[in-house]
Amino acid sequence: MKQIALLGATGSIGIQTLEVLRLHKEEFSLYAMAFGKNIGKALPLIKEFQPSLVVVQDEGTKLELEKQWQGCPVLFGNDGLVEASVADAVDVVVNAVMGSIGLQATLQAIEARKTIAIANKETLVTAGHLVMEAARKNNVALLPVDSEHSAIYQSLNGEQQRDIHKLIITASGGSFRDKKREELVGVTVEDALNHPNWSMGAKITIDSASMMNKGLEVIEAHWLFDVPYEQIHVILHRESVIHSMVEYVDRSVMAQLGTPDMKVPIQYALTYPQRYPLEHTKQLNLEEIATLHFEKMDMERFPCLKMAFEAGREGGSMTTVLNAANEEAVQLFLEGRISFLDIEQLIQQQLTQHETIHKPDLSTILSIDEETRKRVRLQLK
Amino acid sequence: MKQIALLGATGSIGIQTLEVLRLHKEEFSLYAMAFGKNIGKALPLIKEFQPSLVVVQDEGTKLELEKQWQGCPVLFGNDGLVEASVADAVDVVVNAVMGSIGLQATLQAIEARKTIAIANKETLVTAGHLVMEAARKNNVALLPVDSEHSAIYQSLNGEQQRDIHKLIITASGGSFRDKKREELVGVTVEDALNHPNWSMGAKITIDSASMMNKGLEVIEAHWLFDVPYEQIHVILHRESVIHSMVEYVDRSVMAQLGTPDMKVPIQYALTYPQRYPLEHTKQLNLEEIATLHFEKMDMERFPCLKMAFEAGREGGSMTTVLNAANEEAVQLFLEGRISFLDIEQLIQQQLTQHETIHKPDLSTILSIDEETRKRVRLQLK
Repeated sequence: MKQIALLGATGSIGIQTLEVLRLHKEEFSLYAMAFGKNIGKALPLIKEFQPSLVVVQDEGTKLELEKQWQGCPVLFGNDGLVEASVADAVDVVVNAVMGSIGLQATLQAIEARKTIAIANKETLVTAGHLVMEAARKNNVALLPVDSEHSAIYQSLNGEQQRDIHKLIITASGGSFRDKKREELVGVTVEDALNHPNWSMGAKITIDSASMMNKGLEVIEAHWLFDVPYEQIHVILHRESVIHSMVEYVDRSVMAQLGTPDMKVPIQYALTYPQRYPLEHTKQLNLEEIATLHFEKMDMERFPCLKMAFEAGREGGSMTTVLNAANEEAVQLFLEGRISFLDIEQLIQQQLTQHETIHKPDLSTILSIDEETRKRVRLQLK
Repeated sequence: MKQIALLGATGSIGIQTLEVLRLHKEEFSLYAMAFGKNIGKALPLIKEFQPSLVVVQDEGTKLELEKQWQGCPVLFGNDGLVEASVADAVDVVVNAVMGSIGLQATLQAIEARKTIAIANKETLVTAGHLVMEAARKNNVALLPVDSEHSAIYQSLNGEQQRDIHKLIITASGGSFRDKKREELVGVTVEDALNHPNWSMGAKITIDSASMMNKGLEVIEAHWLFDVPYEQIHVILHRESVIHSMVEYVDRSVMAQLGTPDMKVPIQYALTYPQRYPLEHTKQLNLEEIATLHFEKMDMERFPCLKMAFEAGREGGSMTTVLNAANEEAVQLFLEGRISFLDIEQLIQQQLTQHETIHKPDLSTILSIDEETRKRVRLQLK
């Protein structure tokens, strides 16, 4: 039986990870569970899954939770996340926290030789070189949970890295794919949260609307699959049926397809190299779908994607800045304090101002991350 | 360096196999080459590739060729095919002959533990149980060359047979896909030979128009991948971009895509598990193609496909009859002696009259094959 540490249990990926565990009780057990502050959402899950360890965001939440739950120790903060991730019993750490806060726990889990199911692309965007170096050194598998990266991972099954010619990442286009740039003036948070294909958390849905999500995915793919940016291609595919592809040197293109259900890539990361049944997931019915569309990605229409490619090519600390500025700007947009188009402007400002530090270490990354967030907030005043 | 025996060198697959060998001269060498009677087409190839052995259809052709070529021994007939296939030097036998005449050579090559690149689906349709049993016993790899089966083979890379839920074979629909049944009355050989996507030999192009080709592929897939007919699905996909797919128990669908170029699956069969560059093959450009279509396959519109499924499910000698009757009927159509719609009627008659023999041995298969062909010709008079 695989023992799981789930970081980000009350988020969209967390909840769906628990659904997968529910389907295969004889295969998986939840050893540790981390969430932020949402006790109301977490408590029934804690009672159901009976983990050996619970981690919350801060001490206040810990004290509050302990009033209602005495079944296991409750830890809090970054130290708690780390403790849950490196615990002896744990086989797989599912990193599904939001933003870059999962970074340290992931690095520690890699040092402790845990398998990592990575749903948190910010970890790789902000510190890809550190994470991948640690993974190589410790011979640890990083299994992607993002549907695009899972598709690429599956399309690489049994293949050799040197035979890759190109990664082709598909993009649904997000909530605003049919709007021109001038139509983005004045769009609301509600508009942006209305994703056509996937039901996801707020941050990633806004990132989808701005196409920054695809940009972060490009950087994530660069690190996960060790492929240069010149060989990563993004294509608009509104139906989200082909989740992504790999073109090989012999012009063969391997692709993974399916209905949009995150349980598929989540489970694959947990069961790889095996596959378990997922009976309640809708089967792909291409006859019913009838038509798949593909369009060229317009980089001028989606400047966030362009910025991500540029920051990725620049490398070093530039992607840390890209990610931190984006996280902060999206938060401000969700708070109703800036407009949708301000997001890209705030990010661009930070990128322009930043002088790249090459091969930054963890403390440099963490301080650049913090500085950038502060600067974005300052810009606003 | 891999030594190749190429059976059917002057056919469409044969010529394209030689193109692949030309691209990778340091990797492949043509040890033996077999063709029918077309000395005009074969002689320049013999001079170019300088094989150690040449096989032709009959003694007359042998004597004729020997007048023009003394560079190596020339053999003829079935014994010649077998000798070329089992020669010590040979690593891979490419079976690209037309119809079921490659059967004995393939069986002997398997006994001699050669890797088989199988472009000849009739071999598996007519005697799948014998071929697969021999392959298992001798631990020999049967690598498919058909684009659909190559796509499935590639989609199975790194996967486990028990995780297969369904094979999804795509069909372009052939030359008459936009015609209703009543419009098929009086179509000419020329009409039928005008395939929308693939440039292939005459027999397979007619089989595509009647959808028997897809039927033979279903039976071939059943044997190659050990999947019951209930789990083999055919779908109309006019663009022939997705060459075929495998659905797994977790609802993931793996697919292989590409421009329609037979050199890709031919080379894959020769290089597996590696991939070599194919620089002159057009890269797939989904942005340019823009739309992929999928439709339900109508079994009433395409009775040959229905007959193939039925013969496959019945098993035993029934698929031998299906194949022999089809080969003969297509030949009669190509000779202008019957109409297009007569093909399916002649086949249906033979299937209806035949009493299945279960697990027929080779001599039973060969005699049923011969008898069926005679009966089809007799039917005509």
